[in-house]
Amino acid sequence: MSTTIKMIAHKLSLSVATVSKALADSHEISKETKLLVSNAAQEMGYVRNPYASSLRKGRSKTIAIVIPEIADSFFAEAINGIEEVALLQGYHVLIYLTHESLLREQAILQDFRSGRVDGILMSVSEETNDTEHIKTLMESQVPVVFFDRVCEELNTTCVVTDDFESSFIATNHLISKGCSKIAFMGNSINLAINRNRVNGYIEALKQNGLSDYQNVVICGKDKEISQQIFADLLSGPERPDGMILSVEKLSAMLYQICEDMMIDIPSQLKVLTFTNFNMAQFLSPSLTTVKQPAFQMGKVAATALLRKLSFNNTLAEPETVILPSVITFRKSTS
Amino acid sequence: MSTTIKMIAHKLSLSVATVSKALADSHEISKETKLLVSNAAQEMGYVRNPYASSLRKGRSKTIAIVIPEIADSFFAEAINGIEEVALLQGYHVLIYLTHESLLREQAILQDFRSGRVDGILMSVSEETNDTEHIKTLMESQVPVVFFDRVCEELNTTCVVTDDFESSFIATNHLISKGCSKIAFMGNSINLAINRNRVNGYIEALKQNGLSDYQNVVICGKDKEISQQIFADLLSGPERPDGMILSVEKLSAMLYQICEDMMIDIPSQLKVLTFTNFNMAQFLSPSLTTVKQPAFQMGKVAATALLRKLSFNNTLAEPETVILPSVITFRKSTS
Repeated sequence: MSTTIKMIAHKLSLSVATVSKALADSHEISKETKLLVSNAAQEMGYVRNPYASSLRKGRSKTIAIVIPEIADSFFAEAINGIEEVALLQGYHVLIYLTHESLLREQAILQDFRSGRVDGILMSVSEETNDTEHIKTLMESQVPVVFFDRVCEELNTTCVVTDDFESSFIATNHLISKGCSKIAFMGNSINLAINRNRVNGYIEALKQNGLSDYQNVVICGKDKEISQQIFADLLSGPERPDGMILSVEKLSAMLYQICEDMMIDIPSQLKVLTFTNFNMAQFLSPSLTTVKQPAFQMGKVAATALLRKLSFNNTLAEPETVILPSVITFRKSTS
Repeated sequence: MSTTIKMIAHKLSLSVATVSKALADSHEISKETKLLVSNAAQEMGYVRNPYASSLRKGRSKTIAIVIPEIADSFFAEAINGIEEVALLQGYHVLIYLTHESLLREQAILQDFRSGRVDGILMSVSEETNDTEHIKTLMESQVPVVFFDRVCEELNTTCVVTDDFESSFIATNHLISKGCSKIAFMGNSINLAINRNRVNGYIEALKQNGLSDYQNVVICGKDKEISQQIFADLLSGPERPDGMILSVEKLSAMLYQICEDMMIDIPSQLKVLTFTNFNMAQFLSPSLTTVKQPAFQMGKVAATALLRKLSFNNTLAEPETVILPSVITFRKSTS
């Protein structure tokens, strides 16, 4: 038998109305009661029926996640964090993929203007150097919250990690392990997240007097082009002895190329990746990683969006939430 | 500048109307012309605006993918296959996650009855032992195509892999490597895919006279319970010397438990996983895998659904498409 609001009310000795309002994040209910109800609901496996709820209110009770791709453990974890928050408040969650295309992103956002969703959680595409489509949507009273790949110039909540600092620490770590020719492999410079990581890398090189070999490489979304870029870099006269991979999927590519070219990691090349990949420690060699708090970022972003929806879009102050990443040192940089 | 229908028409010396109809998969246009137009559209990077198109036709031009979870490389690849087909025909794709909950799956399908989407691609949850919600949706003229985790009793297109055969071959491989106590670690027996794999495993044991140690273990969706099941099994008196993991995420769990319990893979335990994970070869030890043709399965399923939509749901014959998996032998079973 599935858990009902009545069962939660009975367990907590609260009225059905109070539990219902608490689950809907009503301002009439105290923070403490909301927490109590939310914990009991989670424990008892309560699942709200968003359909019934949307019929009552005449709203879509749906939020959308717009992200560049799905084959990335950061986004998979972030989605789980978003859904944990949204489902408990009775929201449907739709996921849309832009496949790193600005055109696609524009078409998706245009579709939202028809009222399909109440609000949006977004991580922009590599190509997004123009934000008119996002501004237009926000002006039509559909709130947008950014996470990870944010547009800093737009006036809304952004949930990010300490990209400058973690890249700075990562670069210093490679230098401390003896690297003097460190390459930074990233994606589009349109992205604030990439610019921040690049700046952390450059600052660390500067402070260590290693700016002569400043090598920021943009790989882009095409797999074959990226492979060629790696192969050229690793067979060229100025081969790096350290690499920072800013994109998870580059790890498999680099491990393969090093095997093919018989380049030993870590004795000939030290490697560090920004990734949430849960098998990094079991790779051969085990991979040094910068892990973003993806699940937490998803929860924080979803909470901010639902708050905008339950109060009023115009009341919420724009803010930037910065959550710390975790660096784990393993054999690939030893 | 973005590619327009006019530019494609000009390049192919066709009329704008012909190109437009070909892209909409109109029955007025020949197969050859459709292929020509589709290839040119892909080459020239044409992206259709589904919004404009849906305004003209008064349809949502949206299909939904309903899957249990996102943190699985099979589903990530299958989604990419689905989107490749759908986007070219101007469809929006929405992704919904059931988190292995039947209640959640029912709520999502109920929502679809409001006309939010034109058709559904679906892989059912572990808990789905009742298909009333799917039948009801199909009866309301929303076509459903299953892939991977199918409901064999429902009268529609199913896209699957050769689960019995690949599990049979996998079990025989472990036996040929000297294993005599092979455990099969799967998820819910509600799922046809799991039953087929279990049957392949049992048949191989039988043919080799090893049925005394027939050990099918259901891990379920709770991570901690699964960890306990693994730990109990590996510390018990009847410890297996071979394991087939039917679920990708069990691999990381098992590698961790073996490290903690100081059980060596492969000398003390041989391991094989059903997974599409692209770093299996770089694990320590490298992992023997059964890889499903996920991208292709997605393409085939989406093509079948769009065909149902462009003709008429009632005209399309139900069929089961079986695509072969690929087994790659690596050190974890050597």
